[in-house]
Amino acid sequence: MDCIFCKIVKGEIPSYKVYENEKVLAFLDINPANYGHVLVIPKEHYNNILDVEEDDLIEITKAVKKIAEILAILLEPDGINILQSNNPAAGQVINHIHFHIIPRFVNDKVTFHWEPNKLEKKQFEELAKRLKEELEN
Amino acid sequence: MDCIFCKIVKGEIPSYKVYENEKVLAFLDINPANYGHVLVIPKEHYNNILDVEEDDLIEITKAVKKIAEILAILLEPDGINILQSNNPAAGQVINHIHFHIIPRFVNDKVTFHWEPNKLEKKQFEELAKRLKEELEN
Repeated sequence: MDCIFCKIVKGEIPSYKVYENEKVLAFLDINPANYGHVLVIPKEHYNNILDVEEDDLIEITKAVKKIAEILAILLEPDGINILQSNNPAAGQVINHIHFHIIPRFVNDKVTFHWEPNKLEKKQFEELAKRLKEELEN
Repeated sequence: MDCIFCKIVKGEIPSYKVYENEKVLAFLDINPANYGHVLVIPKEHYNNILDVEEDDLIEITKAVKKIAEILAILLEPDGINILQSNNPAAGQVINHIHFHIIPRFVNDKVTFHWEPNKLEKKQFEELAKRLKEELEN
C-alpha cells in the first residue's frame, strides 16, 4: 500500500513524532497552519471517519485532548481548532484518517469561514425528521 | 447560567434535534454552512476541549461518527468536515463545547484555508522534543 502515513507509522518515512502509543501516532504537520500544528492518526489504516473502527477513533480522541492540553500550556495560543476532513471535497489530501490540532493566534492567517445557508423552518423540520428516523434505527 | 446550549438541553429554547442519548445531544445548526450541518454537544456544560471530561468526549465522538455515517448515506455529500473550535480566536461563538459535522459539496461556499508556515528543521526538532517530553510525563 502506498500510503504516506502508513509509511510514517512503519518508520519508512521520517516524521517529527510528539506522541505514540499502541494505537495512535501524533507528529508535527510539516506544512503547519501555525506553530504547533499536530496531526493525530491511527496506526491502522482507515480512509476516514466512515470506516475507522470505533475503538481506534476513541484512542485518537483521547490523544487529541491530551495533546491540545499540552499545546495550550506550552504555547499559550489564543485558541485551538480540531479539524478532521473526509474526501478531497472537504480538503482531505492524505487518504489515511487524521485529526489536525491547530493552535490559533489572533490575526493569524488561518481561515475557517462559511456564509450561513438560509433554510425555511419546514426544511429544517423535514431534515431533522429524516435524520432522527435513521439515527433511531 | 446563561448558556444557549444548556437551555437547548433543558428544552427552554427549541432546536431541531436529530439525536439524543443520556450524555449527548445533536441538533441542526440554524446557521448551516451547508444543508445537513449538525452540532453535537455534551448535555453537561463544558467550555471546550480542555475542560471536557474524557467520558463525555468519547460519547460525543461516538455520536459524531454515527451521525456522519447517516449524513453520508442520506445526503451523499462529496465530503464531510468535523470541526471543533476553542475560544473566539478559533471561531468559537457559543461557550459550550460543540462539534460541527459539515457535509461538503464540490464548489460550495465553505472555506478552510491556511498557507503553510515555513519552519526550519531545527525548529521542528526543538518543538517536537518539547511536546514529546511533556506528553511522556
